[in-house]
Amino acid sequence: MSLLKQHMDDTYFMRMAFEEAQKAYAVKEVPVGAVVVSNGKIIARAHNQVERLKDATAHAEMLALSAAFNHLGGKYLPGCTLYVTLEPCLMCASATFWAKLSRLVFAASDSKLGYTTYPFHPLHPQTKTDAGILQLESEQLLKTFFKNLRKV
Amino acid sequence: MSLLKQHMDDTYFMRMAFEEAQKAYAVKEVPVGAVVVSNGKIIARAHNQVERLKDATAHAEMLALSAAFNHLGGKYLPGCTLYVTLEPCLMCASATFWAKLSRLVFAASDSKLGYTTYPFHPLHPQTKTDAGILQLESEQLLKTFFKNLRKV
Repeated sequence: MSLLKQHMDDTYFMRMAFEEAQKAYAVKEVPVGAVVVSNGKIIARAHNQVERLKDATAHAEMLALSAAFNHLGGKYLPGCTLYVTLEPCLMCASATFWAKLSRLVFAASDSKLGYTTYPFHPLHPQTKTDAGILQLESEQLLKTFFKNLRKV
Repeated sequence: MSLLKQHMDDTYFMRMAFEEAQKAYAVKEVPVGAVVVSNGKIIARAHNQVERLKDATAHAEMLALSAAFNHLGGKYLPGCTLYVTLEPCLMCASATFWAKLSRLVFAASDSKLGYTTYPFHPLHPQTKTDAGILQLESEQLLKTFFKNLRKV
């Protein structure tokens, strides 16, 4: 795949993850969205549902990964890419390890709880990573969310 | 609570977690079981269901935590203890961080993928830990499981 095609695809799929983040924002969840792509098709979409499910582990990535397992009917996600609008935390990054994910792409970085802030990477050795696509939009959505939250 | 009472309670609840591990063993899942205890009562029981759910993240701890959130109706697990027959991996340990778990007790250690093998602890600062209760039984069950698996 050419670099241009890859970049166009990445931007498109991250836009879909961003739409999920916007859905989270609309229902007062921390606005993080994720999609899982297999063979050029979206097989799972999810946004953060910590408030609705009253489950502190209901992060967008965990829900998207579980939906993807369900779709593929296998316990691993070979050939799959996870697009997520915020750098995964250690729990979600470790979940991609168990899933043997092929590729992880995230938008905004998380300098506080993102997995890259730790002294090692918990990802599977086979998992390739990219970051920064739709970074500004994703950061802005999170900033606005937390700014409004502090006003309440 | 006296130390003797604490030890008796811990042994009882770990026995219940071990029963879950035995259920996993019976259905050819990696035999790990977990229970969550709140105010001296079991509010959630689960065993590893990676094979049945075809989901590499369906560890006993993740399922038990989600069931406990559901039971309590809150997004955190204050005052709760998670008993699990094997040292949690990084994903599950990080899940207890998000849950703000009060106490984690595990039986067998996992020198390969247990969270204590990493150069830092991902647990919440409030989470107290204990280990080694029913260690031998839990180790033996896992050893027998993997020995049989290699024979297949």
